[in-house]
Amino acid sequence: MQGVTPLPVSGIRWGSASAGVRRPDRDDLAVMAISEGSTCAAVFTRNRLPAAPVTLAREHLALTPPRFLLVNSGNANAGTGAPGMRDALATCRALALHGGCATEAVLPFSTGVIGEPLPASRITEALPRALEALADDGWMAAARAIMTTDTVPKTSAVTVSIGGTPVTVTGIAKGAGMIAPDMATLLAFVASDAVVSRPLLDACLEHAVAQSFNRITVDGDTSTNDACVLVATARALAPPITEPVGEAYQAFSSAVTEVCRTLARAIVRDGEGATKFATIEVGGCPNEGAALQIARAVANSPLVKTALYASDPNWGRVLAAVGRAMSPDINAERLTIHLNGLCVCRDGARAAGLTEEDARAAMAVPEIVIAIDLGSGRQAATVWTCDLSYDYVRINAEYRS
Amino acid sequence: MQGVTPLPVSGIRWGSASAGVRRPDRDDLAVMAISEGSTCAAVFTRNRLPAAPVTLAREHLALTPPRFLLVNSGNANAGTGAPGMRDALATCRALALHGGCATEAVLPFSTGVIGEPLPASRITEALPRALEALADDGWMAAARAIMTTDTVPKTSAVTVSIGGTPVTVTGIAKGAGMIAPDMATLLAFVASDAVVSRPLLDACLEHAVAQSFNRITVDGDTSTNDACVLVATARALAPPITEPVGEAYQAFSSAVTEVCRTLARAIVRDGEGATKFATIEVGGCPNEGAALQIARAVANSPLVKTALYASDPNWGRVLAAVGRAMSPDINAERLTIHLNGLCVCRDGARAAGLTEEDARAAMAVPEIVIAIDLGSGRQAATVWTCDLSYDYVRINAEYRS
Repeated sequence: MQGVTPLPVSGIRWGSASAGVRRPDRDDLAVMAISEGSTCAAVFTRNRLPAAPVTLAREHLALTPPRFLLVNSGNANAGTGAPGMRDALATCRALALHGGCATEAVLPFSTGVIGEPLPASRITEALPRALEALADDGWMAAARAIMTTDTVPKTSAVTVSIGGTPVTVTGIAKGAGMIAPDMATLLAFVASDAVVSRPLLDACLEHAVAQSFNRITVDGDTSTNDACVLVATARALAPPITEPVGEAYQAFSSAVTEVCRTLARAIVRDGEGATKFATIEVGGCPNEGAALQIARAVANSPLVKTALYASDPNWGRVLAAVGRAMSPDINAERLTIHLNGLCVCRDGARAAGLTEEDARAAMAVPEIVIAIDLGSGRQAATVWTCDLSYDYVRINAEYRS
Repeated sequence: MQGVTPLPVSGIRWGSASAGVRRPDRDDLAVMAISEGSTCAAVFTRNRLPAAPVTLAREHLALTPPRFLLVNSGNANAGTGAPGMRDALATCRALALHGGCATEAVLPFSTGVIGEPLPASRITEALPRALEALADDGWMAAARAIMTTDTVPKTSAVTVSIGGTPVTVTGIAKGAGMIAPDMATLLAFVASDAVVSRPLLDACLEHAVAQSFNRITVDGDTSTNDACVLVATARALAPPITEPVGEAYQAFSSAVTEVCRTLARAIVRDGEGATKFATIEVGGCPNEGAALQIARAVANSPLVKTALYASDPNWGRVLAAVGRAMSPDINAERLTIHLNGLCVCRDGARAAGLTEEDARAAMAVPEIVIAIDLGSGRQAATVWTCDLSYDYVRINAEYRS
C-alpha cells in the first residue's frame, strides 16, 4: 500500500517545507490552503489531556470556517502546559499574517514526541517556504511531511457522480502505532469539491470515522493529538447536497467513508513492525455493539497478535478473547471460528476433523480473516488489526533514541 | 523472587506426580488433600467462556466443602465443549474413588493450552502416584507442578498471632503472562489452619484478591481458567474467627492479603520476558475507582511498557495513558509525575530544570515507581506491572511449538 496518487481537489492547495522540528533532513511542515466559501467538519481525540493544538483547533473551528490547516510532525505539543498553548497560537498567528486571514481561520495540528516544547520559531520561519510551495498537486508531499514512524505515505481518492457531475474526494493520513491504542496519533485530512452544508458534513464525517478509523485498533478517541478533518470547497458544478437523505447524500457519504476506510486500512498495513494484516469479522450477535466489542477484544489481544506473527492457528486465544468481551446473553455453545475460511472451532470446541497441517496452512499467508460467529443473532461488525512482532518492541523502545 | 520455603499448614497435604499431560519429563499434576471440617472459599474467572473445570469447580463448591483440589498444568481443558466437561468430571470421580469422598468434594483446576482435549486417562493413571506423595511439606513441589510459562515457582507464607496462638497462612500461585490480560491464567491456592466460617472466609478472599491479583495487569477476571482458593482447616488452637470485625479478623485478613500480594508481585516479576518491575501509584484522585482506572491504563499501555524496557524516561506516554483513562472532573493542569522520585512533569508539563541525564538515570534500574498525582482529591490506588520486551513476543510466538 504505497498510496494511490491523490487526485487534486479544486479549492485545496497543499504546501510543504522543512522546519527542522526534530530532524533537519525532511519536510515536517504542511499547510493546507482552503478556498473561501468552503465548509469544514472535524473530529478530535476524546483524550482528557489533549494536546494544545487540539484545544486550539476546536476553539477556532467553533468561531469561523478555516482558511488554513497548519500541520507539523516531530513534536506533538502535548504535555506542554500554558507555553504549549502560546506556541500553538503563535504559529497560527504567523500563518494568518502571511495568509491575510483571521488567526481563528487557522487550525493547528501536531504529531510527534509528547512533553517537549514546540520549536514555534522554527515553524514560523519555515512558513513562507511552505506557502510558496502551495499547489493543487501538493497532496503527496503533504502526506510525506506529516509522517512520524510511518514507513509509507497514506493517500486515497475517489470520484463520484452527483447529479451527473463528477465530484472528487481525496484524503491523506498518518499513523503507524498499531497495538498502541493509547497514543498512536492519527491525523487524517480529507477534502472534496462537493457543495455540502456544515451540518451534513458533520454527519458524513461522523459516519465515515465510525466505519473506518474507529474500526482499527488505533482507537481514534485515545491519543492526545488525534484529529480527522473533512473540507468541502463547493467548487464542483454538482448540485448542493442539502438533505441528509437521498441519492446525492448517499453517494457523497459513501465516497467519504470509502476514502477513510482505505486510509484506515493503510494505517493498519503500516502498523509498527506489522507482518500480517488481519480482519476480525464478528457475526451472529444480537446487536452491533456486542459484535464490535468482541471484535475489538480479539483485535487488541497481545496473545492473538503474537499468534498471528507466528502463523500459529491458536484459536484458543481467540476464544479466550471472545469470552472476555462477551455479554451474558450470548450462548457459548454456538461459537464457531474460521481462520481464512477453515473452520477451526464449532459449537465452542475444536472442529471435527481439523488437522494441525491444514490450520497452519491457513495462517501461513500475510492476510488473515478471523471470522467469529456467535450464533445468537444477525448483527455483525468488522475490525482491522495487525500482528505483534519483535519489530514493534524495537520501534517503540528506540523511538526517542 | 525464588519464593520462600512454604510453611506447612496443619490439615493440608500436597502430592505431585508426572502425568505426561503435555511433556513427559516434569510433574504436571498436583493434588491438595484437605482435612475434614475445613472451610473453603474460591473466586473464579468472569470470562464468559470459562474452562470446563471452572464450571465444575463452581458447581461442586456450591454443594459441599471440598476434600481434594486436583490441578493439572499443560492443558486448560477450555474450548473443549461437552467432552471437556465429561473429562473434568471423570478425573474428579477417579480421585473421589481413591480418596473415599463424594465426587462433589473434588474441585478441578487446569491451566495450559486451550482447545485441545484433556488427556483424562493419563491424569487418572497418575493419581495414585500423586496420592502416595501426599505430604505436609509438598507445597514447593506443587508450586512447581502447576507452572506453565513460569520460570520460578511462586510461594508465600506468613504466621500471625490470633488470640495469642500462632496461625499460618501459606500460598502458591502460577501465572506469567504479563501484558496479556485476556489469557494469562492465574491459579492461586492459599490455606491456613485458622478457624474461620465460610462467609468470613469469602469476605477475606474477596478483599485479598481485590488488593493483590486484581492489582496486577494479569486481570483475575479475564482468563478462561483463573481461580483463587482459600482454605481454612480449623486445626490451629486459636479461637474461632466469628465476626467480620475486631482484632482477630483483621489479623487474619491482613495475613491472607499479604500472602496474596506477595504471590501477585511474584507473578509480575516473572512476567513473560520481563526485565523491569514497575509500581504504578496514582494519587490525588476524587475516588479510588478513578485512581485504579488510571493506574490500570498506564500499566496496560504497550508504549509505557516498551519505554520501561528501553529505560526511556518518556513521561509523555504516561501522560497520554492518564488522559485516556481520566474522568472529566479531574483538572489536567495539576498533573504531576515522578519517576523513581524524580519529578518529570509538573502542572501537566515538563518539570522545570529536568535534565535528560537525570531522567535516564532514574530509569536505569530494574525497579521503577511511576507516581502520578492528579491534585484533585485524596484517594489513591497502586497497580504492579512489568515491561514489554522482545522476549514477550518470542515466548508467545513460540509457546505452542
